[in-house]
Amino acid sequence: MAYNLLKGKRGIIFGALNADSIAWKVAERAFEEGATFTLTNTSVALRMGNTAQLAEKCNAELVAADATNVEDLQNLFRKSMEALGGKVDFILHSIGMSPNVRKGRHYSDLDYNYLQKTLDVSAVSFHKLLQVARKMDAINEWGSVVALSYVAAQRTFYGYNDMADAKSLLESIGRSFGYIYGRERRVRINTISQSPTPTTAGGGVKGFDRLMDFSERMSPLGNASGDDCADYCITLFSDLTRRVTMQNLFHDGGFSSMGMSLRALIQYEKGLGCDCDCGDADPGVHRFD
Amino acid sequence: MAYNLLKGKRGIIFGALNADSIAWKVAERAFEEGATFTLTNTSVALRMGNTAQLAEKCNAELVAADATNVEDLQNLFRKSMEALGGKVDFILHSIGMSPNVRKGRHYSDLDYNYLQKTLDVSAVSFHKLLQVARKMDAINEWGSVVALSYVAAQRTFYGYNDMADAKSLLESIGRSFGYIYGRERRVRINTISQSPTPTTAGGGVKGFDRLMDFSERMSPLGNASGDDCADYCITLFSDLTRRVTMQNLFHDGGFSSMGMSLRALIQYEKGLGCDCDCGDADPGVHRFD
Amino acid sequence: MAYNLLKGKRGIIFGALNADSIAWKVAERAFEEGATFTLTNTSVALRMGNTAQLAEKCNAELVAADATNVEDLQNLFRKSMEALGGKVDFILHSIGMSPNVRKGRHYSDLDYNYLQKTLDVSAVSFHKLLQVARKMDAINEWGSVVALSYVAAQRTFYGYNDMADAKSLLESIGRSFGYIYGRERRVRINTISQSPTPTTAGGGVKGFDRLMDFSERMSPLGNASGDDCADYCITLFSDLTRRVTMQNLFHDGGFSSMGMSLRALIQYEKGLGCDCDCGDADPGVHRFD
Amino acid sequence: MAYNLLKGKRGIIFGALNADSIAWKVAERAFEEGATFTLTNTSVALRMGNTAQLAEKCNAELVAADATNVEDLQNLFRKSMEALGGKVDFILHSIGMSPNVRKGRHYSDLDYNYLQKTLDVSAVSFHKLLQVARKMDAINEWGSVVALSYVAAQRTFYGYNDMADAKSLLESIGRSFGYIYGRERRVRINTISQSPTPTTAGGGVKGFDRLMDFSERMSPLGNASGDDCADYCITLFSDLTRRVTMQNLFHDGGFSSMGMSLRALIQYEKGLGCDCDCGDADPGVHRFD
Repeated sequence: MAYNLLKGKRGIIFGALNADSIAWKVAERAFEEGATFTLTNTSVALRMGNTAQLAEKCNAELVAADATNVEDLQNLFRKSMEALGGKVDFILHSIGMSPNVRKGRHYSDLDYNYLQKTLDVSAVSFHKLLQVARKMDAINEWGSVVALSYVAAQRTFYGYNDMADAKSLLESIGRSFGYIYGRERRVRINTISQSPTPTTAGGGVKGFDRLMDFSERMSPLGNASGDDCADYCITLFSDLTRRVTMQNLFHDGGFSSMGMSLRALIQYEKGLGCDCDCGDADPGVHRFD
Repeated sequence: MAYNLLKGKRGIIFGALNADSIAWKVAERAFEEGATFTLTNTSVALRMGNTAQLAEKCNAELVAADATNVEDLQNLFRKSMEALGGKVDFILHSIGMSPNVRKGRHYSDLDYNYLQKTLDVSAVSFHKLLQVARKMDAINEWGSVVALSYVAAQRTFYGYNDMADAKSLLESIGRSFGYIYGRERRVRINTISQSPTPTTAGGGVKGFDRLMDFSERMSPLGNASGDDCADYCITLFSDLTRRVTMQNLFHDGGFSSMGMSLRALIQYEKGLGCDCDCGDADPGVHRFD
Repeated sequence: MAYNLLKGKRGIIFGALNADSIAWKVAERAFEEGATFTLTNTSVALRMGNTAQLAEKCNAELVAADATNVEDLQNLFRKSMEALGGKVDFILHSIGMSPNVRKGRHYSDLDYNYLQKTLDVSAVSFHKLLQVARKMDAINEWGSVVALSYVAAQRTFYGYNDMADAKSLLESIGRSFGYIYGRERRVRINTISQSPTPTTAGGGVKGFDRLMDFSERMSPLGNASGDDCADYCITLFSDLTRRVTMQNLFHDGGFSSMGMSLRALIQYEKGLGCDCDCGDADPGVHRFD
Repeated sequence: MAYNLLKGKRGIIFGALNADSIAWKVAERAFEEGATFTLTNTSVALRMGNTAQLAEKCNAELVAADATNVEDLQNLFRKSMEALGGKVDFILHSIGMSPNVRKGRHYSDLDYNYLQKTLDVSAVSFHKLLQVARKMDAINEWGSVVALSYVAAQRTFYGYNDMADAKSLLESIGRSFGYIYGRERRVRINTISQSPTPTTAGGGVKGFDRLMDFSERMSPLGNASGDDCADYCITLFSDLTRRVTMQNLFHDGGFSSMGMSLRALIQYEKGLGCDCDCGDADPGVHRFD
C-alpha cells in the first residue's frame, strides 16, 4: 500500500547490497511512495551484490562511493544533485562493518587497526557524509537523515563485539550533528535502533540465530523485519515527523523496554530443567567467548 | 496535505476541549486522513469547551465519559463500537490535570487527596481505558494507542509539580500494558513526549511562558507545535509503525537531547551580565517555589 | 570490616522485617559504621517480624509507623529526633507492597483500590516522609535519603505487575523532591535499583526463582545480595557521596547494562534444543499471565 | 577525614597534571585512605606539569606512558606490579584531549585525523589499558576501574565538539569490557559523569565559564568539585561497591536529572527582559559556532 508520502522528494540511500538489505527494502518503499533517489555503495559491494538490479527497478542512478572517503562523498552529492535535479530531502545511512568480528577477534583481543576501521566505516562515515552535505549545502530545509543502529549501543550483547562501541559513537554523532544541522537549516537527524535482522551484515555476528530467537520471544510484537523497518523509515522521511530530531528510535517490537517476557522465560526455564544435554549440540557457543 | 494514511480506520480521541487542544488537532488530521472516530471528554469539559463543533466538523459522535470511571469507559467503548461499526484501531489519551497545580500547592506541600486525583486522572485513567478495552476486546489487532507525556517524566522542571510524577507513572503504564496487549493481540502502546504546548492545560503550569521560551531556544528545530504533534500521531496510528511499542517518543525539536544550546546560552549570558533589573519584572517567579 | 563511615550520624531505617530484609542488613552495617538510628515499620509488621531483636542488637529505638500516614510520620520524626538527640542525617525507605500481586490479580485485571494502595504504600509514602521531614526540618544539611527500587521501573518484567509502575513513581518522586530539598537544604535523595533479592517481599513476585536465576546469569558479577546492598547504602549515607543526588543507581552486578550474556544464552539455548519436556514441571508459569 | 577505605590496595592513576587535575585530587585522597599506587602520564605532560611533586608527596612511583601506546601500557603495568608488589586493585582513567577543540575546528568542519586522535586518546586508550591489563592478568579479583566522563555523552552541549562523541565511545567501552572482565575475573568497570570542572583540560572548552555558571545554577547541590569527585572515586575503589559495574554514574549535584531550575530560570529571564546589551560583552560567543 502506498500513500505518496515522499512525492517529489529526492534522496540518497547508502548500503543496499542485496534483497536482504534493509536499505534495499527502504529503496523499494521510497520508490513506491513517490521519491526519486540515488543508490550508493562501495565499488566492491557493487560488484559483489546486485544493486544494479535495484537501481533499474527504482529508476535510480547508481554512484559508487566509499563512505569513509570525503572526496567520494563530495562526488556522490554532486552527482546526486545533478541526477535528481536539486538538493536532497532524505538520506539513509545503513553501513556497518567490523574487521574484528569478521576475523574472529574477541573483544578482549581487538586489533586496534581493525577497531579504527570499524569506527571509521560504521560511525565516522556518518559524520563525513553530514559534513560534506552541509558544506555543499546539499540537503533541503526540513530534510531528514536516518542511520541504522542497534540496542547494543546501550546494553552489552554477547558476540556483538566492537560494533556495540561503533553504534554508540554513531548515535552520538547523530545527536551532535543534529544540533548543528537542525538549528541552521532545519535538517533533522535520527537513528533507528532496529531488531536484529538477518541481512548479510547481521549474519556475521556470533550466535546470531540464538539472539534472533531470544529477541523474538522477548519482544511482545516479535522482531521487526526489514520490511517493517522500511515502512518506519518512510514515516521519518515524510513531512509528518518534522520535529523529531536527535533521537534514537527503537523499532524492535518492544524489545528495548523488556526485562523478561513469559515466552522467553518458559524457554529459558526449559534449559534450566533440562538434563538431557539436547541443547549442547552447537559447540560453537562454548568454544568462543 | 492528506495521504489517506488512516483510511478505513476507527478510533477514539480523548481530551479535545477547544481548538488549542492537541487532541483537537489530532482529530482534524485523523479526519483528513480518512479515519472515523468518536470524541470523548468529561461532561464538565464538554460544557466548558466547544467539542461539539469539532464533532460536527469531523462527523464524529460525542460520548461523555469520565476516564477515571470504569463504567463510563465501558459505555464509551460500547457506544464507539456501535457508532463506528466495529472495534477501534487507534486511541489517543490526552488527559492530564493536577489539583495541586491548580490550587497553587507547592510540591513540598502537596495535598495527598489532590495527589491521588492527579495520578488517577493523568495516569491511572490510561490503565483503566486499556483494561476496559482489553476486557471488551475493543481494539483490533495491530491497533495503536498513544498517550501524551512530557520530558518532566525524566527530568525535573521548576513548577511542573506532581504532574511530573504523574507522567512517569503514565509512561510506565504504557510499557507495562504494552507488553500484555502486544503479546496477546498485537496492540501497540506508546507515549509521545511533546514540547510544551500552549493549551488550556499547559497554561496552568507556573512560569509557562518562560519555559516555552527556554525550550524554544534550546531546541534546534524549535518547539514542536500542536499541529506538528497531530502529524506525528497520524504516523503512529498508521500501519507504517507497526513494530513500535512500549516507547516514549520525544517529539520536541531536539530538546530532550540538548544539554545547552548557543541560543539559550546567549540569552542566559545576557541575564548574567545584566545589572539593570529589567528582568525582575514578574515577582511571581521569586515568590513561589 | 568497618570504617567509621557513619560515625556521629543519626538515621531512620524503614522496612526491617526479619534477617532477610535489606533494611535489616543496612541497620547492622550502619551500626557497625558508627551510626545511631531508629527503626520503624507498621504495627502489623512489628508483630509479624522480629525487628525488636534487631533494635536490641543495634541499640536502636523502635517506633511503629504506617508510612502512608502523615501523623504517624510526624510522630516518628519527633520521637527519632528526641531519641537520637538531634536531626537525622540519613533515611532508608525500603517499603513496597502490592495487594494486586498478593491476591493474584493479573496486570490486565487490576483492582483499582488495590492499585491505589500499591502506589500509596510503595511510592507516595516516600513523598510523605520527605514532606513531613522537610516541614519539621528534621534532616541535617547534606543529609542523604535512599529508597530501594528495581529495574522494572525502566523495563517490563513478567509477573512484576503494578509494582513496576509503583517503582517508576517512586523514582520520579525521588527526582522531584531531590530538586526541592537539594537546593534548599543540601539534602540528597537517590534510589538504588537493586538486583532481585530473596526477601519476604521479593518472594511474592511470580516466577521469582526463575527470575533470580536469569538475572544471576545475565549479570557479569552475579546478583547483588542484600549484604552487598547494605554496603552500598553505607557509601551513599557517608560524606563521600555528597554531590550525588536525584539519581537512580543500579546496584545489580551489571544486569541493567546487559542485553544478552553468554551464560544466559547457553541456558536459553538448552531450552530451545530441549524436547524432553523436563522444564515444564511447574505449570504455574503457563497458567498465569 | 580518612577512613582507611583503601588500606592495602594498590592502584594506577592516569592523568594527574597539576593540582587542578581531578586525578591529582584522587591521588591525594587515595593516599590518605591507605592505598599505594603509581602515577602515569605522557612524557610531555610529565615535563609540563608538576606530577613529580605529587609522586613525592604520595610516595608513588612515576611511570611515563602514552595511553594510546600498547607497549607503553605493558611497561606501565609491569613496572607498577613490581613497584607495588603485586597486581593492582584500582585504576583511574582521567584522559581526554581533542585536537579539533584545541585548534578551534568547528564540529561541522572537523579534521578527520584530529577526530581519530580525539577518539584514540580519549576513549580507545581506555580499551587499550583494559586489554593490556587483562592479558597481563594485572588486576586482582574485585578490582575497580573508573574513567571520567561528562553528560555531553548523552546530551549535546554547545562547544563541547567531538569530545561528546569521544565520551559516548568511552562509556560504551566501559560497558562492553565490563561484561568481559566482570564475568571472568570480577573486575568492575564504571564511568563517572562529573560536573564541569575547571581543570587545564576543561578550560579548553568553548564558553566554559558560562557553562559552569549555568550548570551551577541548574544543579540543586551546585557543581561537584574535583575534591568531591575524589571522594566519590574512593567509594568506587573501596570494597563497599563491589556489585556496581557497567554503569555511568552521574556525580553532578543533580544536573543530569534537571530540566529547568528556578535559579537558572531567573537568570535566564533577566536575559529575556534585558535590553541594555550589557550581556553582549564577550563577542566570542557570537563569533564561533
